[in-house]
Amino acid sequence: MPLSDIAPGADFVGFALVKSAESKTTASGKPFVAYLLQDRSGSIRTNHWDATEAIPAGTLVKFAGKGEEYNGALQFRLDPHRFRPVEPRDNVALADFLPTAPEPVEDMMAEVRATVEAMSDPDYRALVTALLDDASGTMLRFPAAQAMHHAEIGGLLHHVTSMLRAAKALCGVYADLRPDLLFAGVILHDFGKMEEMERDSAGLVCGYTAPGKLLGHIHLGALRIAKAAERIGTPPEKSMLLQHMVLAHHGCPEWGSPMPARFPEAEVLASLDLLDARLFEMRAALEHTAPGGFSERVAALDRRELYRAGE
Amino acid sequence: MPLSDIAPGADFVGFALVKSAESKTTASGKPFVAYLLQDRSGSIRTNHWDATEAIPAGTLVKFAGKGEEYNGALQFRLDPHRFRPVEPRDNVALADFLPTAPEPVEDMMAEVRATVEAMSDPDYRALVTALLDDASGTMLRFPAAQAMHHAEIGGLLHHVTSMLRAAKALCGVYADLRPDLLFAGVILHDFGKMEEMERDSAGLVCGYTAPGKLLGHIHLGALRIAKAAERIGTPPEKSMLLQHMVLAHHGCPEWGSPMPARFPEAEVLASLDLLDARLFEMRAALEHTAPGGFSERVAALDRRELYRAGE
Amino acid sequence: MPLSDIAPGADFVGFALVKSAESKTTASGKPFVAYLLQDRSGSIRTNHWDATEAIPAGTLVKFAGKGEEYNGALQFRLDPHRFRPVEPRDNVALADFLPTAPEPVEDMMAEVRATVEAMSDPDYRALVTALLDDASGTMLRFPAAQAMHHAEIGGLLHHVTSMLRAAKALCGVYADLRPDLLFAGVILHDFGKMEEMERDSAGLVCGYTAPGKLLGHIHLGALRIAKAAERIGTPPEKSMLLQHMVLAHHGCPEWGSPMPARFPEAEVLASLDLLDARLFEMRAALEHTAPGGFSERVAALDRRELYRAGE
Amino acid sequence: MPLSDIAPGADFVGFALVKSAESKTTASGKPFVAYLLQDRSGSIRTNHWDATEAIPAGTLVKFAGKGEEYNGALQFRLDPHRFRPVEPRDNVALADFLPTAPEPVEDMMAEVRATVEAMSDPDYRALVTALLDDASGTMLRFPAAQAMHHAEIGGLLHHVTSMLRAAKALCGVYADLRPDLLFAGVILHDFGKMEEMERDSAGLVCGYTAPGKLLGHIHLGALRIAKAAERIGTPPEKSMLLQHMVLAHHGCPEWGSPMPARFPEAEVLASLDLLDARLFEMRAALEHTAPGGFSERVAALDRRELYRAGE
Amino acid sequence: MPLSDIAPGADFVGFALVKSAESKTTASGKPFVAYLLQDRSGSIRTNHWDATEAIPAGTLVKFAGKGEEYNGALQFRLDPHRFRPVEPRDNVALADFLPTAPEPVEDMMAEVRATVEAMSDPDYRALVTALLDDASGTMLRFPAAQAMHHAEIGGLLHHVTSMLRAAKALCGVYADLRPDLLFAGVILHDFGKMEEMERDSAGLVCGYTAPGKLLGHIHLGALRIAKAAERIGTPPEKSMLLQHMVLAHHGCPEWGSPMPARFPEAEVLASLDLLDARLFEMRAALEHTAPGGFSERVAALDRRELYRAGE
Amino acid sequence: MPLSDIAPGADFVGFALVKSAESKTTASGKPFVAYLLQDRSGSIRTNHWDATEAIPAGTLVKFAGKGEEYNGALQFRLDPHRFRPVEPRDNVALADFLPTAPEPVEDMMAEVRATVEAMSDPDYRALVTALLDDASGTMLRFPAAQAMHHAEIGGLLHHVTSMLRAAKALCGVYADLRPDLLFAGVILHDFGKMEEMERDSAGLVCGYTAPGKLLGHIHLGALRIAKAAERIGTPPEKSMLLQHMVLAHHGCPEWGSPMPARFPEAEVLASLDLLDARLFEMRAALEHTAPGGFSERVAALDRRELYRAGE
Repeated sequence: MPLSDIAPGADFVGFALVKSAESKTTASGKPFVAYLLQDRSGSIRTNHWDATEAIPAGTLVKFAGKGEEYNGALQFRLDPHRFRPVEPRDNVALADFLPTAPEPVEDMMAEVRATVEAMSDPDYRALVTALLDDASGTMLRFPAAQAMHHAEIGGLLHHVTSMLRAAKALCGVYADLRPDLLFAGVILHDFGKMEEMERDSAGLVCGYTAPGKLLGHIHLGALRIAKAAERIGTPPEKSMLLQHMVLAHHGCPEWGSPMPARFPEAEVLASLDLLDARLFEMRAALEHTAPGGFSERVAALDRRELYRAGE
Repeated sequence: MPLSDIAPGADFVGFALVKSAESKTTASGKPFVAYLLQDRSGSIRTNHWDATEAIPAGTLVKFAGKGEEYNGALQFRLDPHRFRPVEPRDNVALADFLPTAPEPVEDMMAEVRATVEAMSDPDYRALVTALLDDASGTMLRFPAAQAMHHAEIGGLLHHVTSMLRAAKALCGVYADLRPDLLFAGVILHDFGKMEEMERDSAGLVCGYTAPGKLLGHIHLGALRIAKAAERIGTPPEKSMLLQHMVLAHHGCPEWGSPMPARFPEAEVLASLDLLDARLFEMRAALEHTAPGGFSERVAALDRRELYRAGE
Repeated sequence: MPLSDIAPGADFVGFALVKSAESKTTASGKPFVAYLLQDRSGSIRTNHWDATEAIPAGTLVKFAGKGEEYNGALQFRLDPHRFRPVEPRDNVALADFLPTAPEPVEDMMAEVRATVEAMSDPDYRALVTALLDDASGTMLRFPAAQAMHHAEIGGLLHHVTSMLRAAKALCGVYADLRPDLLFAGVILHDFGKMEEMERDSAGLVCGYTAPGKLLGHIHLGALRIAKAAERIGTPPEKSMLLQHMVLAHHGCPEWGSPMPARFPEAEVLASLDLLDARLFEMRAALEHTAPGGFSERVAALDRRELYRAGE
Repeated sequence: MPLSDIAPGADFVGFALVKSAESKTTASGKPFVAYLLQDRSGSIRTNHWDATEAIPAGTLVKFAGKGEEYNGALQFRLDPHRFRPVEPRDNVALADFLPTAPEPVEDMMAEVRATVEAMSDPDYRALVTALLDDASGTMLRFPAAQAMHHAEIGGLLHHVTSMLRAAKALCGVYADLRPDLLFAGVILHDFGKMEEMERDSAGLVCGYTAPGKLLGHIHLGALRIAKAAERIGTPPEKSMLLQHMVLAHHGCPEWGSPMPARFPEAEVLASLDLLDARLFEMRAALEHTAPGGFSERVAALDRRELYRAGE
Repeated sequence: MPLSDIAPGADFVGFALVKSAESKTTASGKPFVAYLLQDRSGSIRTNHWDATEAIPAGTLVKFAGKGEEYNGALQFRLDPHRFRPVEPRDNVALADFLPTAPEPVEDMMAEVRATVEAMSDPDYRALVTALLDDASGTMLRFPAAQAMHHAEIGGLLHHVTSMLRAAKALCGVYADLRPDLLFAGVILHDFGKMEEMERDSAGLVCGYTAPGKLLGHIHLGALRIAKAAERIGTPPEKSMLLQHMVLAHHGCPEWGSPMPARFPEAEVLASLDLLDARLFEMRAALEHTAPGGFSERVAALDRRELYRAGE
Repeated sequence: MPLSDIAPGADFVGFALVKSAESKTTASGKPFVAYLLQDRSGSIRTNHWDATEAIPAGTLVKFAGKGEEYNGALQFRLDPHRFRPVEPRDNVALADFLPTAPEPVEDMMAEVRATVEAMSDPDYRALVTALLDDASGTMLRFPAAQAMHHAEIGGLLHHVTSMLRAAKALCGVYADLRPDLLFAGVILHDFGKMEEMERDSAGLVCGYTAPGKLLGHIHLGALRIAKAAERIGTPPEKSMLLQHMVLAHHGCPEWGSPMPARFPEAEVLASLDLLDARLFEMRAALEHTAPGGFSERVAALDRRELYRAGE
């Protein structure tokens, strides 16, 4: 039974993914856990009264209870005795409850790897290979964000792969771009996110790490390049160019880049990063918009309302 | 003799293009004309004392005089009796004195026209065709700016053609983009510049028109689309989409766009417009920069210094 | 019975205007319509459970139900069988439920028309007359906004008439202002709003149109002038001056004007537009403020608190 | 002989006003005084070599010398022995060399005084009268600025009088404005300038005082009201309202107002202050602009170019 | 019984401080008073139905009622017949319910006074003494804010004393600072707050006064110095320096300072004011943060999350 | 003979430091080198005509020539045959021509070292010691800037030492500050400057390096800490805290810090860095200001004019 079947006054039994779980105390000192549960049909908030230990985010749970309605809002009264992590006999698959990139992650990784192997500059090839070797286990399924664009299993690769295709296309138009440098920058630009964000057991991002909040993925990413380059002996100039591309890829100080792009490949990287993220957000918002109508305001696009042309 | 041969104390005779000419009066009430002369080797300022009538910008002139040096700066004392527009017998060609787009303007126009003819949507095809028919005589050689990116004969077409190629490339990556709408937007986005800017007789931009300063090329361009659409019966929705793309293509209010892009093609247009202009400026600045060094600050890129990697 | 008589636990029967109506679905998939009902004594939200078709905004309804109180907030439980549009036999007048400009709309329109007829410049007279002829049916009762200043029947005329009187007063102080140009600008400056905003059947603004969100009333208004001027042969210079005044009347890019006022009449227009709107908001906020006290923060005035002097 | 008669190579004898005089030393330690001299035909810079004592700004001088031209710029070589303050026998009047408000200062002051006497509120009448009595000797001829709007003898009164007329006109349109409060605010809003700016002996502003730079005319003006109100027993509420109007009259923090206008009269004051200053600047710039052309960029109007319509 | 003992379904009797009390009317016209009650264990909101007169903020009350839970939130149903101000026989002390500075207010005042007495400049000593004499009764227990840093009994003195110690420490490092001027500025910089903010009967700030909102504590504080200086004959230069320090102490226009610091002591004052306030906020937020974790976003620190290092 | 003795028409022979040297070409293609020469009495610009090789910045030179005056400005005509680097027999010392920190660099370094040795936390002690060991040869005489605050031999140590003293003083006032962490942050915060800036042979900063412009001293400094910490095994948490302090020490994105301070020591560091720099600039500007007067506008202080109180 999908979550969308929950109705006021009706009993419900079903499965869902724990999206977040917070242990709290009522003003009177009694413990409870506040849950946000989700499946592909939607999500619902409910409280587990008197519980002291939370089932962590990323767990698939089986639960039962009853819908209720207060002031026109649907609520769910969880049966505290019928709420538990799924077990093998439940025979449900986590993957069916997770937002996931549209292409298989292995295919995307293969495309990235092939791009690297085709680089004619041995230094960039070696450096990107070393960094991919270090990270690729993690990178394979890493989301690109917690709630914004590409917050999905494999989202980081999804983002990188789209940008890589666009970068290749632009190299055909602007002949002075150096493809190896641009592709290396595209592949590495968000590597720091893998240290910046924390994943729950399902693989979705559930928060930021201490290094993420104190140092940020931009510095962390550039640092990772600097250290790998030193380790494998990349010429300092090339390490510096790539570090600059990472530092500059958010485009301006207010968005976290301490300096603007100072050469064409850095400019193209910043431009494609922004464009790819915005097109993702637009696509997501327009999917739920009727032809000839406007979307809700999209937080990730400065609260723009988007238009879907009448068809 | 090129302008770069002018030297202190030496006589000079040569040809140059009048880039600007201003009639002025000394504090004592005597008239003179201040000229900026240019050829492909450089430019020089000189005054025509006692002259009351200026030879207009865009004229090719023959002139003589002598180099002088004050305070370490080179000046030129124009011989007032040896300064005149060129005549047929001088046998010099204006084209040799003008910055010009790297591809023949006819080729670029043919590429634009072919793109339009290949559109599958008859409304966009008809509307863009009508606007090109109205404007193409003017558009063929129109620069895209007075001093910034693409300030060259055929610069507007140069800018449009690069963007069109990039737009085609991106349509292969982002499948939800509607090619006809995007290409129409790219072709028309700067049409208003042809009313906004004034050309000298050589075809370079020498200033802004009154409609340019009072209404701006964004409103002028959208207005032109509105009127042509009404005339030929384009469906109002399609005219509206294109007008929106023109209004939104500068990206934010501070840069002249009253609203942000509200659908993907408008976003791509704004992104490519900015990127194409910046890559042009970067290329121009890096041409004069030694490998491993930094350019001067580039006014058109928020005073960035650019880096040319060591080779 | 006015809405302010609704009390917890008490039955209620009365009339109200539908201010907004949204068809929704509960999480369990059951349809309902969420209404905001208003009369001159206040407003109340209520839900029509199981309803699939909404009574549209702008309709006068008769309804019954019962007040309820949850958590200190008053709610209203609508009797789903006693909720319908008013019928002739109900003998209630829509006008009694609508915010309306303080002067009769016909008087204001007559004042505007008289101003136009008194213009000594035949071009401005003809152009403004033509635009008023096209629009005056619509303009007569059009509000000037959805929720901000002059959101009332006849609000656009109310705003224009106040500004016109102020403009006339200032022409007596600043002798270099050209009255006809200034008055024409005042009358036409918000014409685009009639295409930008959508009205419900009662005549109040209930949202924005697609052209409103994609093109904005500033461009739409200037476009309307451009087309009328072309049609009736207004000299291009005069059309351009008026278009500029419309484009510049919001004062700065952040507020939607792509360029600042470039001549005195455009500056006066922008100044009076802002002042008239602010004085309207101040008056509205201070009406509900006790002498010697401060108003709530006023959203339309950058969240200022206003002071009402002790009397 | 007016300054505009100075020509290269020609001797010149004439009169001018010292606009500024700075004692300097050459790098080699020799003293000189750098002068800016002006009359109604223009101005010229010249140096008095070896002079150690400057003739102060505001002095009328008789001088002789010769025009010279370097690099196309006109210079003036002052004859050091023929440069002295005017004497009675020279028979020239300072007033002929000064920019001056268009109406007689006594007439403007009489209009201000009449406005005060006509106030029906005895508190505002008494307070403004007391402040005018303290200041009116100074105020009569005080300029409103050093270089911006109303930098002329009587400029402060010129500015106040225009605003007062506009304020009276608007009171006829917006019936909820309290005339006495508004007029008192208009008259007093720039009183602090009389402590903020320093005048030369001719009465033009030649710089800022220490209190001007450390405290500013806004605080100084409000302070003056606070002290006078305390002295003559104005009710604290009324003193507070007027102080608020002074504090808020620049409209926003960036322009020196720590808070926005919090009641209608303060809003009108801020609006009229800005409008009167801008119209002054526009008038000044357009006087030197040909019909159908644009002015130079006007520093005091955020570098706008202004348009003078073709006539 | 502390407020934290309130539990759903359980009866409660206890004492608390009225933090705020607002008289309201239900939509049905019935009066009630909404209370926020607090003690050191926390706070709770409750409504006194049908009450027309509010027990004012700052009063200690005895009350009874019952905890309730709606939608997971704890509420409190006040027994309207068992709610009254405390009486002597209750034998509870207000001080036990108030946030209070960590050092005795008399000690802090003595430290301030000793600092003044040790000044070697008799003018600053006399002026600060006079202002302290006027204000010290009020100052002794005045909070420094309503909700931000130092919102506690004696908070103003707490803030001043910390800054004074820091100022003394810096005078040992930067030898060109004039101690007397700096200390006088530190002591007086927030004097205007005593007119800007209103206290409830318990001595906590419960709102802003009309002069506070219309004039602000910066102008009010400078004004107070100006008047005292005039009264006791402080040299105008010294009064001006101190007024400048007050005007400039918020650092920039957006934060209320019309001009930046123009001498070193004013700069140090602005720097220490900001630092002391921020360190207070950081300390308060980190107290409730576990080692190795981040605080909630802190409104008073631009919504920063703070890190408490793992220990 | 000091540079201040150069006078128009007079011969001059003397010594100076080459502050900058740029090889240029006249428009006519002739090479020259433009020099800025300085000693403690001032500086002068001159050109070495026909020279193709520049004497590099940082060299002490002996030169002869003649003063000249054009348009009231002093110039210097360099005798091209009497211009050479100093030789031993000239018997002049470079140190007499250099701006230098007021305390001996060895004393300051000893103070820094002593502070480190006194740290009770062995991790911070070891890490700072390692970084000082790596850098101290360079650090000893490194300036803190090219033209702003502390642009002097030993300027970096001067800046660090002042801040360290102030940090110690504040630790006595704010008891929750961790001294070792704060002192380590102060010592290391500008370490990246040693890679960001290039020195001439005299030891003054003459420009930025490629890593300086592409990566910036903030990232470079944090990177250096990260690498040293990894090498010597500093606990990651402590490395992270120090990296954060470096990243955050400019206070806001516009000034290069990607995030704000997230714990008290980082806040104190940012505050002291700004204060120390500003006090340096104020001191420098006020030294040249007469009592009771204002300085020129100071570029490094947002163009403030500073006041020197009358004495």
